[in-house]
Amino acid sequence: MNIGLLGFGTIGSSFYRLTLNQEGFCVKTLLSRREREGLSCQVVYSFDEILNDPEIDTVVELIGGMHPAFDYIYAALNAKKHVVTANKMVVCAHYKELISLAEQNGVCLRCTAAAGGGIPWLPSINRAAAMDRLDAVEGILNGTTNYMLSEMTARGADYSELLREAQELGYAEADPTDDVEGFDTRRKLVLSANLAFDISVNEQDVPCEGISTLSSEDIAWAKERNLVFKLSARAERHGSGISAYVCPTLFPSATTEAQTNDIYNLVSLYAEHIGKQSFFGAGAGDYPTASNVLADCMEIKRGCPPFYNDHSLDDCGIDNAGTEGPWLFRANGTYTVRCLSVANAFYVLSKLRGIDSTALLAKLPYTVEV
Amino acid sequence: MNIGLLGFGTIGSSFYRLTLNQEGFCVKTLLSRREREGLSCQVVYSFDEILNDPEIDTVVELIGGMHPAFDYIYAALNAKKHVVTANKMVVCAHYKELISLAEQNGVCLRCTAAAGGGIPWLPSINRAAAMDRLDAVEGILNGTTNYMLSEMTARGADYSELLREAQELGYAEADPTDDVEGFDTRRKLVLSANLAFDISVNEQDVPCEGISTLSSEDIAWAKERNLVFKLSARAERHGSGISAYVCPTLFPSATTEAQTNDIYNLVSLYAEHIGKQSFFGAGAGDYPTASNVLADCMEIKRGCPPFYNDHSLDDCGIDNAGTEGPWLFRANGTYTVRCLSVANAFYVLSKLRGIDSTALLAKLPYTVEV
Repeated sequence: MNIGLLGFGTIGSSFYRLTLNQEGFCVKTLLSRREREGLSCQVVYSFDEILNDPEIDTVVELIGGMHPAFDYIYAALNAKKHVVTANKMVVCAHYKELISLAEQNGVCLRCTAAAGGGIPWLPSINRAAAMDRLDAVEGILNGTTNYMLSEMTARGADYSELLREAQELGYAEADPTDDVEGFDTRRKLVLSANLAFDISVNEQDVPCEGISTLSSEDIAWAKERNLVFKLSARAERHGSGISAYVCPTLFPSATTEAQTNDIYNLVSLYAEHIGKQSFFGAGAGDYPTASNVLADCMEIKRGCPPFYNDHSLDDCGIDNAGTEGPWLFRANGTYTVRCLSVANAFYVLSKLRGIDSTALLAKLPYTVEV
Repeated sequence: MNIGLLGFGTIGSSFYRLTLNQEGFCVKTLLSRREREGLSCQVVYSFDEILNDPEIDTVVELIGGMHPAFDYIYAALNAKKHVVTANKMVVCAHYKELISLAEQNGVCLRCTAAAGGGIPWLPSINRAAAMDRLDAVEGILNGTTNYMLSEMTARGADYSELLREAQELGYAEADPTDDVEGFDTRRKLVLSANLAFDISVNEQDVPCEGISTLSSEDIAWAKERNLVFKLSARAERHGSGISAYVCPTLFPSATTEAQTNDIYNLVSLYAEHIGKQSFFGAGAGDYPTASNVLADCMEIKRGCPPFYNDHSLDDCGIDNAGTEGPWLFRANGTYTVRCLSVANAFYVLSKLRGIDSTALLAKLPYTVEV
């Protein structure tokens, strides 16, 4: 496989190094914004040099962000080149369009590294969905915020201190919005739900709360009750609809979720006959993520369908008006617990934000004393 | 894919039902010992009718046991038919022979359902091993004993009561030896280690202790110390050797292992760059296991190598003389803790069994007060 690699950041450079030890996979050309020395591939500064090279059969996009990554991915598929990406932003926003493009051009599109870091999560959803009905997917899907929450929990440190630390460690970007506001998690949930339920969800339809209003007082409040804060996402079938949301979630301290710390992810699927399957592994980090990129290349080289499966790609709205459950609110320093539907919980939060911009919403496992 | 199905027990019948809903996969013929009515396939009583049918491209062996299952698998591969099996006994005992036979005949052999029930465990080891160095594999791999231990722990019930219960529930066989003595777990560990380290292990070389000497007093002793008994297996690289063993293992009660209950399995791999990955799911049960059989059929239909990977199949002895750790012993009612190598721990147990046939050996996570 002759690869045109776009991007030489932490994941791109790790992927490149992996290919050096892998017979049959060769990065022929690297698109870089800077000069690079000591590489065994040619380095170019214009994407056209990759696009127009008939020897390159696969483009690996590891730049990230919407543009020009989407434009490169689109052009590559249109030029009948396979595409492997870790770019959840692009794949979510252009899901149907890119899958259709891959199908029309008889090439393959894969994005396993986009959700779950090094965990073979999307292939495992696909494997289960091929023969069973999936009822739910959920999990802790963002390594940055999980690192921050684990450390806040372990050390009683406050949010801004941990954000600074995460940035210094390279776990968080200079602009950490996508991670801390839950948008990154939301995209990963959308990809998971799309595969699990054979649908196409608009990420904007999924209510999303991140961790930016969580304080060390909240962490302490939880600790007194043997609960631990995580940023969790869940999508499930109910009736004829799909419910989906992202928000801080409290887990009893003895649960696997509560003990999934640092940059690790924990994701679960629930299928009618197969039951529950959970997957735990590094959700971020150069080699774990790069390994999923290489695994996708190997799948494509073996021969595989244009996308993970034949998907109906039916648009699917989110219906969060169903089952009620206990939710924790904090506004103006006061904690309350209310039993509400997901939709109503987010509605109440929006009202509370009008009087307290740092108001908190968190999902509870059961009703607790405030 | 036209399938010759051997066996119509819990897994065979579940697999058959799964194929009814799966386009492209058809059980053409069933080999059964009894008459069967209402099936859409033909039922035969002689394996030759499947072996000699040129329309049948794949044999799915779900009879279990060594003979005639091994003979059928061997003949099928030799007749250039693919084979999918859940039979860990056969695959372990004839590992190199069957893989070579598949390679020579240009057909595929898969046994994902043999280790981990419904969990995509063997494919996940293979995926990681394709691009990284695996350092260890371990886990709780037997649903029967895990059910028994979970219930003994939860209810304080004794071993013989739980064995009776497990048999009534169909979780244990009339002859439960393979499960309770750890032999089933050992075979699953051997398959896992073979794939992880690119070797071929003789199961008899792996020291193996099951749960048949565990008493409710042992469970209570552990509970007082916030420890939980599980039957665990571990294989790891050390120096230039491979260590491997199966034995009762104590886990702190807050760990994921301690909380993996009922018929669930929890398996982990440790790779140099990818880090730790864990997989949790139903380790037994009709549909989970049958789903892994069908997933193997789907792999074969897509086109895949003769076995999970090109394996060197080098014979590999087990070297358990390395790292020392804390072990719990009970003999004549007295508990002791000693820091020993794996090899020495099993040696001491063999001596203790000379004076007390119910002597216990268990691996500790750290030194404890007796």
